[in-house]
Amino acid sequence: MTSAFYIAFEGIEGCGKSTQSRSLVESLRADGLTVTATRETGGTDIGLRIRDVLHDTANTHLDPVAEALLIAGDRAQHRAEVLAPALARGEHVVSDRSVYSTLAYQGYGRQLPLSTVRAVNDWALDSRWPDLVVLLDVPHDHAMSRLAHRDLDRFERENDDFFRRVRDGFHHMGSEDPSRWCVIDGTGDPASIANVVRDAVRERLGI
Amino acid sequence: MTSAFYIAFEGIEGCGKSTQSRSLVESLRADGLTVTATRETGGTDIGLRIRDVLHDTANTHLDPVAEALLIAGDRAQHRAEVLAPALARGEHVVSDRSVYSTLAYQGYGRQLPLSTVRAVNDWALDSRWPDLVVLLDVPHDHAMSRLAHRDLDRFERENDDFFRRVRDGFHHMGSEDPSRWCVIDGTGDPASIANVVRDAVRERLGI
Repeated sequence: MTSAFYIAFEGIEGCGKSTQSRSLVESLRADGLTVTATRETGGTDIGLRIRDVLHDTANTHLDPVAEALLIAGDRAQHRAEVLAPALARGEHVVSDRSVYSTLAYQGYGRQLPLSTVRAVNDWALDSRWPDLVVLLDVPHDHAMSRLAHRDLDRFERENDDFFRRVRDGFHHMGSEDPSRWCVIDGTGDPASIANVVRDAVRERLGI
Repeated sequence: MTSAFYIAFEGIEGCGKSTQSRSLVESLRADGLTVTATRETGGTDIGLRIRDVLHDTANTHLDPVAEALLIAGDRAQHRAEVLAPALARGEHVVSDRSVYSTLAYQGYGRQLPLSTVRAVNDWALDSRWPDLVVLLDVPHDHAMSRLAHRDLDRFERENDDFFRRVRDGFHHMGSEDPSRWCVIDGTGDPASIANVVRDAVRERLGI
């Protein structure tokens, strides 16, 4: 058995993160592990109020640096209230999105300086970064077609170039840090993908 | 005449900042100057939503780093939406509080690392710090007695030691950077203080 492990699901809008993170939580619990299921942004009551501001389609005038700082604020609250206490209790944590979304969206997507985004978020996290990142990889057009039937929020209304930079950012981070990242094809049927994810995570956990 | 000037009023709760910043705006406008009157936090519509979270007495569990990051997010939005555009139009800006409140409250008061608080806020400000800081100095007991009749918000409910550290922080910053800071006795009657403030600001502006 391994000590408390922090697993983050990442990927662009419509890649299936929410479905897959729920499946993983269920399968780890079925294995008898204690798991805290969470998400960023909005994983706390305070964070939900910040998330409302971030996703509000009326806030087209939200400054990119303000956006990045508000997200980091949500993250610090989540670290203090959810992440650090769960890990301290010895529980595994599975999160729908993490600091790597901020690097991808605000760093690569909005083109804010990556080193600054990294430093601000390292402070928010008290340096506790995810141990394992599951990147659900889907082609750009595939993700866009999944979004076609939704009411889009402020992020989902971004243009194609933005999402291409975000997707490239995720791939770049994954290739730079392969021991932490696990890139999984997210285009198949959800049950098959869940099996691939579960096997990859079990291997890392030494189950 | 001088170019656009950024003036911030600072001091602990109950020192008379709001009254004095309003008086200064009126007197500069009476001198024929164009002035943008603003405040931090909550100087924008997005900032008001953040301020509500920060001041909410229910949020006793707000993490200190989260608090500092949310304030910096408010500040970046204020810089983008109010401060930078006003200065670019050649207007003077008079603000009720500024980045120095964050250094005093979150740095000195909450004892977060000053260099990090400074760096995060320098990013939020795009390095545009106040040109002149008017510190309204009142003894601790004097400020507390002014607050005695109010419904106190989350900051105002802090303990005596916290406010002493904040007040000491303001004094320390003022003594380190005397060309930027103007420390004014805030214990007299408001009209007399307004005259002292007006004269000090006119001198700096070269009026």
